[in-house]
Amino acid sequence: MARDPVALVARAITGDRAAIAKLISMVESGGRDAAAAGAALYPHTGRAYTVGLTGAPGAGKSSLTDALIGRIRNDGLEVGVLAIDPTSPFSGGAILGDRVRMQDHATDPGVYIRSMATRGHLGGLAIATPRAARVLDAAGKPWIIVETVGVGQVEVEIAGAADTTVVVLNPGWGDGVQANKAGLLEIADLFVVNKADRDGVAETVRDLEMMLDLSAHSDWRPKIIQTVATRGEGIGELWDAILEHRAFQELEGRLERRREARLREELASIVAERLRELARAACSGDRFEALLASVLRRDVDPDTAAAELLAPT
Amino acid sequence: MARDPVALVARAITGDRAAIAKLISMVESGGRDAAAAGAALYPHTGRAYTVGLTGAPGAGKSSLTDALIGRIRNDGLEVGVLAIDPTSPFSGGAILGDRVRMQDHATDPGVYIRSMATRGHLGGLAIATPRAARVLDAAGKPWIIVETVGVGQVEVEIAGAADTTVVVLNPGWGDGVQANKAGLLEIADLFVVNKADRDGVAETVRDLEMMLDLSAHSDWRPKIIQTVATRGEGIGELWDAILEHRAFQELEGRLERRREARLREELASIVAERLRELARAACSGDRFEALLASVLRRDVDPDTAAAELLAPT
Repeated sequence: MARDPVALVARAITGDRAAIAKLISMVESGGRDAAAAGAALYPHTGRAYTVGLTGAPGAGKSSLTDALIGRIRNDGLEVGVLAIDPTSPFSGGAILGDRVRMQDHATDPGVYIRSMATRGHLGGLAIATPRAARVLDAAGKPWIIVETVGVGQVEVEIAGAADTTVVVLNPGWGDGVQANKAGLLEIADLFVVNKADRDGVAETVRDLEMMLDLSAHSDWRPKIIQTVATRGEGIGELWDAILEHRAFQELEGRLERRREARLREELASIVAERLRELARAACSGDRFEALLASVLRRDVDPDTAAAELLAPT
Repeated sequence: MARDPVALVARAITGDRAAIAKLISMVESGGRDAAAAGAALYPHTGRAYTVGLTGAPGAGKSSLTDALIGRIRNDGLEVGVLAIDPTSPFSGGAILGDRVRMQDHATDPGVYIRSMATRGHLGGLAIATPRAARVLDAAGKPWIIVETVGVGQVEVEIAGAADTTVVVLNPGWGDGVQANKAGLLEIADLFVVNKADRDGVAETVRDLEMMLDLSAHSDWRPKIIQTVATRGEGIGELWDAILEHRAFQELEGRLERRREARLREELASIVAERLRELARAACSGDRFEALLASVLRRDVDPDTAAAELLAPT
């Protein structure tokens, strides 16, 4: 298949899986093609609703995602999944360890699952994820699940940049205190206490309720849902809570404001990233070495040299 | 006095204290005048030798600086001192708490002492300090002491960017382990165990020697000097060690290579700082809001908008 971004977009919006795969790789890797693809995709986006899912490794996020996929497919709707792992060097086709169960859906043409990992590409996953989500959006997936593997800063940032953010805990996982420390309380629209057949559920729910009492959630108080994802228990309630949060957001322009704030952040991130690339380019190569030599000879001072490095050639 | 940078430089190189003070304030605050002053100063620099002095608060750095000033003045040489405190909001004329003793030298025309602190100016002290040091260099001070108050990242970076870096410890201050953790072992050319009349000197020296055995100092093994700065004990030895390190560096072009590496870092820092300013400017104001609105209307995609924000107006 040609790597012409515009031709790929034309095929992706018909749901062509190979084109979707190539486009995600393209926008992920950055560069000129990524920009062209992003520009061609963008007019076709804005219809998908994104659900972010985060929590500590082992909390059962993949099982929940799997169950949610099933729930969404039950309604006859298509769904795209981005499984984000900043700690893994594997990206693209790789299905990560405990995501094997999602393979059940891999042959379902209404489901598109993609793993994304850090490959040292510029900008990182926080910039690549919304780009990849827009590919799925343009391809007509009405629901997009963005699952991150952990509770590091990047994961929290990525999962928090969804329309509805679900934070997954376990009974006794850390009595909400850990969630608070990781900044999860701030980003959560919904809490899931998964593996709710284990001891300590009541304490975890109580801890969360207490911390929600203490925190300043303006108008939406995060719901707490108990699930046993591997047995499908509580998934209906979780899905209802997601729909309820979506309906709440669609009132009074909340969703638009949230998306505006997110685009504002994204635009600033892209600007910052482009300037970091500019800095890297300016501070390497022959031109830099030549100017450094001039500074060492005292022909030019450091400030003037820096200005020259940044002047258009 | 006029604030014309070039006129100020002409006066500063004759040793005019008021001009020196104004120039340091000027280069510290950044902006157009700072660049003009830096350019005018730079051809007059390169003769001074800088000694960096760092260590935990209370280790006795100010007493050591005071004693070193006395030692340098004994040889009839002039000396400039920059006392750097990233934790203080006070800068300029302010003599910080335990630096009062340096007041003894404040009336000596051969000594110029200046406190520098974070005033929220762009670039911060890591960029401002070498600029201020160049003012003192151009003003003809053959020795410049850069004293930092603590062992934070910025302090270590600043003190480490000297021709000779002295790390000040106390007996039992933390058996070298703390010094190692703070990155002091890497930057130290000399260790001073000050307050050497207290218990635990032998242990501290032994710990340091052991850690030096384990670390990979290429060709210069840092000396360990014991002092009681308040009584002037060990200051002669410290001074001799500084001169010895200087002589060592002046062999085989080591000092030139060290200064080249430093200038390389400084140039990259200035470039990065200028680009951060550019990012701040690009991501605020009417132009940013107008482009964000276009992105929200899907008239333009985020990447194209970012490129437009960074295009020359």
